Amino acid sequence: MGLNSFGILYRFSSWGESHGKAIGVVLDGVPAGIHLSLEMIQNLLHRRRPGLSVYTSSRKESDEFELLSGLVDGITTGAPLSFLVKNEDVKSNAYQEFLGVYRPGHADYAWDKKYGIWDPHGGGRASARETVARVIAGAVAMQILPPSVVISARVVQVGEYQDPDEIQEAILKAKQRGDSLGGLVEVVATGVPTGLGEPVYEKLDARIAYAMMSIPAAKCVEIGSGRNCVSMQGSQHNDEMDDNGFLSNHAGGILGGVSTGQPLVVRVSFKPTASIFLPQKTVDNRGNPVCLKLKGRHDPCVAYRAPVIVESMLAVVLADFFLIARTRRL
Amino acid sequence: MGLNSFGILYRFSSWGESHGKAIGVVLDGVPAGIHLSLEMIQNLLHRRRPGLSVYTSSRKESDEFELLSGLVDGITTGAPLSFLVKNEDVKSNAYQEFLGVYRPGHADYAWDKKYGIWDPHGGGRASARETVARVIAGAVAMQILPPSVVISARVVQVGEYQDPDEIQEAILKAKQRGDSLGGLVEVVATGVPTGLGEPVYEKLDARIAYAMMSIPAAKCVEIGSGRNCVSMQGSQHNDEMDDNGFLSNHAGGILGGVSTGQPLVVRVSFKPTASIFLPQKTVDNRGNPVCLKLKGRHDPCVAYRAPVIVESMLAVVLADFFLIARTRRL
Amino acid sequence: MGLNSFGILYRFSSWGESHGKAIGVVLDGVPAGIHLSLEMIQNLLHRRRPGLSVYTSSRKESDEFELLSGLVDGITTGAPLSFLVKNEDVKSNAYQEFLGVYRPGHADYAWDKKYGIWDPHGGGRASARETVARVIAGAVAMQILPPSVVISARVVQVGEYQDPDEIQEAILKAKQRGDSLGGLVEVVATGVPTGLGEPVYEKLDARIAYAMMSIPAAKCVEIGSGRNCVSMQGSQHNDEMDDNGFLSNHAGGILGGVSTGQPLVVRVSFKPTASIFLPQKTVDNRGNPVCLKLKGRHDPCVAYRAPVIVESMLAVVLADFFLIARTRRL
Amino acid sequence: MGLNSFGILYRFSSWGESHGKAIGVVLDGVPAGIHLSLEMIQNLLHRRRPGLSVYTSSRKESDEFELLSGLVDGITTGAPLSFLVKNEDVKSNAYQEFLGVYRPGHADYAWDKKYGIWDPHGGGRASARETVARVIAGAVAMQILPPSVVISARVVQVGEYQDPDEIQEAILKAKQRGDSLGGLVEVVATGVPTGLGEPVYEKLDARIAYAMMSIPAAKCVEIGSGRNCVSMQGSQHNDEMDDNGFLSNHAGGILGGVSTGQPLVVRVSFKPTASIFLPQKTVDNRGNPVCLKLKGRHDPCVAYRAPVIVESMLAVVLADFFLIARTRRL
Repeated sequence: MGLNSFGILYRFSSWGESHGKAIGVVLDGVPAGIHLSLEMIQNLLHRRRPGLSVYTSSRKESDEFELLSGLVDGITTGAPLSFLVKNEDVKSNAYQEFLGVYRPGHADYAWDKKYGIWDPHGGGRASARETVARVIAGAVAMQILPPSVVISARVVQVGEYQDPDEIQEAILKAKQRGDSLGGLVEVVATGVPTGLGEPVYEKLDARIAYAMMSIPAAKCVEIGSGRNCVSMQGSQHNDEMDDNGFLSNHAGGILGGVSTGQPLVVRVSFKPTASIFLPQKTVDNRGNPVCLKLKGRHDPCVAYRAPVIVESMLAVVLADFFLIARTRRL
Repeated sequence: MGLNSFGILYRFSSWGESHGKAIGVVLDGVPAGIHLSLEMIQNLLHRRRPGLSVYTSSRKESDEFELLSGLVDGITTGAPLSFLVKNEDVKSNAYQEFLGVYRPGHADYAWDKKYGIWDPHGGGRASARETVARVIAGAVAMQILPPSVVISARVVQVGEYQDPDEIQEAILKAKQRGDSLGGLVEVVATGVPTGLGEPVYEKLDARIAYAMMSIPAAKCVEIGSGRNCVSMQGSQHNDEMDDNGFLSNHAGGILGGVSTGQPLVVRVSFKPTASIFLPQKTVDNRGNPVCLKLKGRHDPCVAYRAPVIVESMLAVVLADFFLIARTRRL
Repeated sequence: MGLNSFGILYRFSSWGESHGKAIGVVLDGVPAGIHLSLEMIQNLLHRRRPGLSVYTSSRKESDEFELLSGLVDGITTGAPLSFLVKNEDVKSNAYQEFLGVYRPGHADYAWDKKYGIWDPHGGGRASARETVARVIAGAVAMQILPPSVVISARVVQVGEYQDPDEIQEAILKAKQRGDSLGGLVEVVATGVPTGLGEPVYEKLDARIAYAMMSIPAAKCVEIGSGRNCVSMQGSQHNDEMDDNGFLSNHAGGILGGVSTGQPLVVRVSFKPTASIFLPQKTVDNRGNPVCLKLKGRHDPCVAYRAPVIVESMLAVVLADFFLIARTRRL
Repeated sequence: MGLNSFGILYRFSSWGESHGKAIGVVLDGVPAGIHLSLEMIQNLLHRRRPGLSVYTSSRKESDEFELLSGLVDGITTGAPLSFLVKNEDVKSNAYQEFLGVYRPGHADYAWDKKYGIWDPHGGGRASARETVARVIAGAVAMQILPPSVVISARVVQVGEYQDPDEIQEAILKAKQRGDSLGGLVEVVATGVPTGLGEPVYEKLDARIAYAMMSIPAAKCVEIGSGRNCVSMQGSQHNDEMDDNGFLSNHAGGILGGVSTGQPLVVRVSFKPTASIFLPQKTVDNRGNPVCLKLKGRHDPCVAYRAPVIVESMLAVVLADFFLIARTRRL
């Protein structure tokens, strides 16, 4: 199975902690013969990087990767691609003061109960730093997919706001208060071939939900009409067809778990960043009450950095099903 | 992998079509030594059955199962349990008139494009009849889980309505119009042990999203605060703790992908039943426009039958992680 | 994963006990669009059947199967194929006398220690009756593979004998003595496409060894030169090439875990049937010494019935890799 | 699935080519709380290293590993362990002369046909250098297993010889001739708990065969009596029991796919090293006949370096089943 892997045929496995030496990802099942653009990978990684604007964390990460295997003369050989990204600008001191204290909204409590040991340095394995692996896997997935496929995500709501200027203002204000905000990311994929997804338990929408909900801070995944379908009638929701194709897209590009060729539409809700700088009630690992006031560097709105991760996870799922689809008809 | 299987260690595989001879499910990874209550399985199946009230389809299905393997003297042996449920009251004629016509909102178009062949009788493999397998798997899962775990789902919204009486009235009206309604199901699991879920890609919430979105007609999965987290601030959303435990549960019982021991809270949105009895524009498999007016028997609100399925899928995920958790510390 | 499943993309899952109501197998990942010959399946099952000659057990099994799902008009739809074979001529009485006694050479002791419960009727799940599932899976696999692939197995040695007449005489004599004999089965597959097998851990030879050693009573698996390679020199063993191709086939058709297009050559050694009718020292499940003298019906040489099973397992492995190979180059 | 991974719950994934920057392995499913001995890992790696004696290749590899993740204060956290071993003493020049020529007995031809591209430098991904990953995975597996388990392998035959002195002499002579020799390795594991192995397709012997046959150059895997069972009778082969336990061990410690607690006995035959220094007929990748006379550094007998790899693969399989066994009874 692989607890730290995602995918069936196209499969990535990640390793590494926030404040360790490096994090890495191994990509397995990459078809042979792809002229791999490393530049495209780097570009996506740059989009993920914090410190790009006042809206996000000020941690500096160059996110330069090393590719250690799987290429000959720039072409994939069918062997695994191993990527390594060194950790830089690691300030573990910021975490020293509250060693043993469970930070609200973080994995600390649950993981300590689970494993009986937990790595307090920057969240360890639970850190959003792990999403570097997702982005690399996504960038290669995009190069497995046919060039017709275009995947694009954006923040469509933060707090109550949907207007970009208002969103930015709201984030800045939250940051100044030491607080954080939730946000909603929408991703659309066009040019997706029909026939991707494997009923009945490996449906395209099921695996998209799986992929998206595994992203740190995700709390909701919607396909097409999503949450709004609850208050719709069948006569509204059904996408009628004529000889030009579908007349609407409430399905979000998926029927019966299989892509229809219409644009895929997926929305992911991200909770407000758990790391805030206001005093919070919590306990330590001996059960003693603590008033925690965090220091450090954190994104005031994780959703703001999420679009590239959401795009990447969608690409991973699509590339996987694109390969599998080749085996479903002779 | 197994396209028609779900689960890692506790794993079910289903087979069968709506209008075939039978449908069945094979349960693998069931621990030895469980005194299996078949009555509990039958009770859950009865809850799933259509025809129980005017609010649902009038198809009669007794849903009596046969258990063909895996027990000695009522006790599980560790071998697979094979369940078979015969199909009854199959009226294929209802589908004859529109053979080759893609029903809006159904799998027909996508599956035909995918496989180059599709079974038009009652939806074939895409039929909600397949959920019998999920319920059986769930009923056994509940007997693997510790008795502390209590899982309960209910319909909390249909259309615009949240009041049970108003919901029933709205469904009746929709049925009379030949239309259908969407609905929202909430499931809560209490008594869940801490430590279930396997970061970072087999998180509890990720696999719940996967399981729920694989249910026919699901369009949205929410964990805890869910979709509402978008308009919240970190200082509201974070669940603080004191020496009595958590002071709120926006997390929905999961932090860092691992259960915290708080109640698990999951919501699933179901689209309005695709089979409606109003005229709809569509095409047939040669691309000719058709005005489709369906006949037959269909639930006007699939959400209304969904709670037992949602409970079952949650039980399957929890039982799987309950077993896996035994391997994560020596 | 699936403890009772075999295969990656083309995957079969079996269930059922020797003396239960039925045994069955579910085939997943079968490509859509295959005109399935049920006659071919029945023919293979007939070859597996005991009672065909004096050399094998006298248990009568008609082995008529029912196919319960996955076909429309005789063509595969991509959905799982579910096969059921009812158990007949079950004489559990034969096992009553020695309930609780561990039969030497059987699974009894090990399974009882493992599960704390074991089904003593005819070996339960451990019975060779399970190989019906393998043969059905193999018969469908052969219909997934290109028609060029021809798989043929035969018994090449029993005891010390390699001559067919001597083999038959030796088996008869062993039967008269109440004893049993080991045997060696060789399978050759010609017309296998190049490029099947997935280095470095899903090598073709590795998965063949896995498949073959999972057959009841198998103790040794050899590829090509097999056990004899130990006493060879590289200059003998290496298969040289000229412009007509390979000049020898010590490799057995596999290099670096991948098929070369040469004939696949695999040999499987089967131990003598564990059920013999001579007195044997053993213990019961309370540790008491017992002198066991079995009655019942058993093959005096399991190898004699094994060729069709060996062919089937090879077909399953090849069909699986045939599908996977489609995803390894774009 | 993961083509470059091995194991179910305890699972390792390797990457890297012989003449690339490094090779590595990621270990997933390692239980939390293990005080990991890195020294033990290094010791096993040293045993694998070539250049230790005149009997093996003269390539110098220090095989010092870096551990990049998964530990806090020397204790496993449940997160993946990532190991990296840099490649040193890489002499690609040795391979320049025969670029594009298929070396007899090597993966070259098959992989080129499969992928349409192949890495000629030192065998690329097909190199025995990959076995570093197996040894690391095995060394950690040994620390997951109960301390009662002792695994020990040795070369029991090379060519026709079984006496250690004669074996060494035969290898030296083969080396002087530019030729190579096959060999047989036997591994015995004592102290193995009863109940490991998951019938009926994940049997202990089946997965051992799978693991062993995936080792480069393996051609035969035997369990217990192995190949010799062919010429035995049931009355000889069956291991009788009395109140002191088993009276013999032809089963090799496994009955019905499950460990009995007796010593596990497994033998693996390794073909003679494919790289020999005598002239050989072959073709290049355009089909032209070539007379190949290899240069470079190669083991004259791969079996001589194999014991530590065989031990490692057995440990991996046992650790995996040791974890799984915890889930098979509540």
